[in-house]
Amino acid sequence: MNIFKLCQTCSGTVLRRCIQTSSTRHVELTSVRYPDVKRGNYGSVRDSDLATFERLLPGRVLTDSLDGYNTDWLKTCRGASQVVLRPKSTEEVSAILKYCNEKKLAVVPQGGNTGLVGGSVSVFDEIVISTQLMNNIISLDEISGTLVCQAGCVLASLEDYLSNHKLTIPVDLGAKGSCHIGGNVATNAGGVRLLRYGSLHGNVLGLEAVLANGEVVDCLSTLRKDNTGYDLKQLFIGSEGTLGIITAVSLNCPQKPEAVSVAFLGCESFQSVLDIFKESRQKLGEVLSAFEFMDSQTMTVAKENLKLRSPIEDYPFYVLIETSGSNGSHDEEKLSQFLEHVMGTGIVQDGTVATEPTKIQNIWSMRERIAEGLMHDGYCYKYDVSLPLQSFYGLVEAMRERMGTMVTRVIGYGHVGDGNLHLNLTSPEYSTEVMDKIEPFLYDWVANHKGSISAEHGLGFKKKNFIYHSKSKSAVRLMKDIKHTFDPNMILNPYKVLPDF
Amino acid sequence: MNIFKLCQTCSGTVLRRCIQTSSTRHVELTSVRYPDVKRGNYGSVRDSDLATFERLLPGRVLTDSLDGYNTDWLKTCRGASQVVLRPKSTEEVSAILKYCNEKKLAVVPQGGNTGLVGGSVSVFDEIVISTQLMNNIISLDEISGTLVCQAGCVLASLEDYLSNHKLTIPVDLGAKGSCHIGGNVATNAGGVRLLRYGSLHGNVLGLEAVLANGEVVDCLSTLRKDNTGYDLKQLFIGSEGTLGIITAVSLNCPQKPEAVSVAFLGCESFQSVLDIFKESRQKLGEVLSAFEFMDSQTMTVAKENLKLRSPIEDYPFYVLIETSGSNGSHDEEKLSQFLEHVMGTGIVQDGTVATEPTKIQNIWSMRERIAEGLMHDGYCYKYDVSLPLQSFYGLVEAMRERMGTMVTRVIGYGHVGDGNLHLNLTSPEYSTEVMDKIEPFLYDWVANHKGSISAEHGLGFKKKNFIYHSKSKSAVRLMKDIKHTFDPNMILNPYKVLPDF
Repeated sequence: MNIFKLCQTCSGTVLRRCIQTSSTRHVELTSVRYPDVKRGNYGSVRDSDLATFERLLPGRVLTDSLDGYNTDWLKTCRGASQVVLRPKSTEEVSAILKYCNEKKLAVVPQGGNTGLVGGSVSVFDEIVISTQLMNNIISLDEISGTLVCQAGCVLASLEDYLSNHKLTIPVDLGAKGSCHIGGNVATNAGGVRLLRYGSLHGNVLGLEAVLANGEVVDCLSTLRKDNTGYDLKQLFIGSEGTLGIITAVSLNCPQKPEAVSVAFLGCESFQSVLDIFKESRQKLGEVLSAFEFMDSQTMTVAKENLKLRSPIEDYPFYVLIETSGSNGSHDEEKLSQFLEHVMGTGIVQDGTVATEPTKIQNIWSMRERIAEGLMHDGYCYKYDVSLPLQSFYGLVEAMRERMGTMVTRVIGYGHVGDGNLHLNLTSPEYSTEVMDKIEPFLYDWVANHKGSISAEHGLGFKKKNFIYHSKSKSAVRLMKDIKHTFDPNMILNPYKVLPDF
Repeated sequence: MNIFKLCQTCSGTVLRRCIQTSSTRHVELTSVRYPDVKRGNYGSVRDSDLATFERLLPGRVLTDSLDGYNTDWLKTCRGASQVVLRPKSTEEVSAILKYCNEKKLAVVPQGGNTGLVGGSVSVFDEIVISTQLMNNIISLDEISGTLVCQAGCVLASLEDYLSNHKLTIPVDLGAKGSCHIGGNVATNAGGVRLLRYGSLHGNVLGLEAVLANGEVVDCLSTLRKDNTGYDLKQLFIGSEGTLGIITAVSLNCPQKPEAVSVAFLGCESFQSVLDIFKESRQKLGEVLSAFEFMDSQTMTVAKENLKLRSPIEDYPFYVLIETSGSNGSHDEEKLSQFLEHVMGTGIVQDGTVATEPTKIQNIWSMRERIAEGLMHDGYCYKYDVSLPLQSFYGLVEAMRERMGTMVTRVIGYGHVGDGNLHLNLTSPEYSTEVMDKIEPFLYDWVANHKGSISAEHGLGFKKKNFIYHSKSKSAVRLMKDIKHTFDPNMILNPYKVLPDF
């Protein structure tokens, strides 16, 4: 059964409902697939613990039908949590953690459960603390564009809310229909707008987090500038729930663009993709809001697995450029001057431009639904790396040559503007042989070319042991010291991010 | 003797030369002015230490004429350092710190020494480690706009260098002629471009720092995205040299704008300033690159102390708006539509627009030289706070009422676009009575209005004990834990940032 076709509310994005209604019985338990990982010396949930949780969160302690909470979106990891807690407030999160810390019960924080590295589900029987019911907007200052909300707000809902106030949210990604803003911040989500608005390290003005011992760290500033001591909030951004549970965030929200245009272009080589990027930075300047690329194998996924039609003829490479600005006619003039130039010099072979919302959405769907399309092949070996642009596509070619017919396909797409490549390989089902052929070769290749083994997905469970490919020993040692300071009993999202202690 | 008039290379910005050539004998020793601060249990520099330093840094150990290194730019703090070390490389910084840590010799890192909170000079006899000779550009990637350089590069020099490659630097401030990029990062400098390009937390792609024990932490990534473990570099940004000495940085550099325009406007009330801001965000959108305000008392400083002429008639409030973009005619059209609107509705009473570089520079000088102009009054009580916009100017009015004739003047100016107010009071010389009237009243006012007691200047020596006005106890406790982890002997920039342990 193809769960995506059944989900009427999906509209090209991934909804939590998909997971909850799908069968997950065929996903191997993480503890079985990774037999070398041993359960830590944590307590196990007893009836007395459940009674306490029920007292703290009346009617919001789940112990049945937990498949959706135990299985990651990619269906590559499955935990064995027996209980899911659904707090509504920071105080409840604090009470839960204080109790768990005293009893040495391990927990896994979970937002929309759309993470791609096994970071948001349990590895063994950790208690799931879900932010599903923490979805209130706390305040909005329209003049400065500052939004404060609870961690469980769904990204797309925030975008809708802000849209009514002529504002927009500085982060956007394919999973926006189900991912939570708290999860976005905890994983330092990147997405397609980073090129324009910068990363969450710049856009998160403040946050509130609960430490393992239940202490609430209030850094929920709404100020754009605040240089009073170390910027602690930065540590929580991208720490994947291992230093504290983010309960509320304050975001700097830019003006909603008055006009948006999208161009979809075809070209002959990856060098042309880079040339188009350089020209777009110069000619589109401040209205350039996204620069994405796909190779022809990626387009095959869109056509074969998602039954989408390309808006242009077949080419080895495709580029999606988005402009957004405050004056539609100015933006269009910039875009046509740019297109005239790149078509005239022959860098671009063919292209189409969309200014209507529906057409824009159709083109974006082609890019954003690739992750979904890949899952139709069976198992997806998913990599998300940063590379200097001169080495960027070389990795796809190297992997294609190395893997040969061992895999169904090797595709490359992603955010060229951020040096961020999504490299994906698929096979009918998970194969240790395939995995051993990919890793650590791929990580070595990335490290040798001065890249990062995880650009925006994080390390989670699946990549934590490869951290030394991107970070020095002294840096990892400092991270471990910080983890020890924040969570001495190591109850927060164990087996994730940092290599074994 | 007015040192500013003598300094021919100043051109409206503040150069280190000014300090080094000026007399500083009249500045009271910090240890005398603040008798409650006690020297820590550190070693004192002996001849054997000097011999070791001379062996590590041949010819680059200074022990004479140290006034310029011992006195802060505001002439409000004076340390008693007996030795200044001038390393050229990260390895040399590492060797120095390893030695100092073993001998428990305290150090103060110093860049351009343009800080405004006494953070960059010693309090007692700490050893000054200057980055003056660490001024090499390491690499530039023109396609992605990534610059890597040593920490001692002067900000204006980097801007000049990048300008030749059609790029610019994402941080700009009045002291650019002498401040070092390492100091900018260590203090999380804000400045006038933050509104457009965001903070250094978003623009620093990587950095290298040396810990107190001499260990080099290499996080010098050139990648825009890297989610592999905790983002350690963020901790060093804004830690004011108390966690490590930054030796190199990697910066994301935007395209240099093709066109820049500046409008200088006069209006009747602070509410009009806010109305103009709201309109500018909507009508100028992505080309708005600065939004500054000054009150009439600030203009008096420019006229009386700097002999500058206002380009427009007298008004209670002035606004400086800068646009910068990739297409001059588009930007001018946006700006004139905006001006027509705000003049038409009567929010703006009068104004002038400049598009020529010299005229633009003249208008900017009026804003950027205020700090210099204030020093002509004698002593300057300098405050740099963030406030929600509805309370923004209320603080200036409250202080003016409170201080009456006790001070020469109370002025307010700053970055409205970032909610950042520069509030300054002057008197002929430092007065404990005046200080006691200002503090803690001012900090209480800011805290009661949910502001930050230091928006961009940091806490340094002068404001560290007021940290609880902006940060919670749990947050400060975590900061202290982090400090202890990074610098167990507390040799790095003691008596700064954090309240006494």
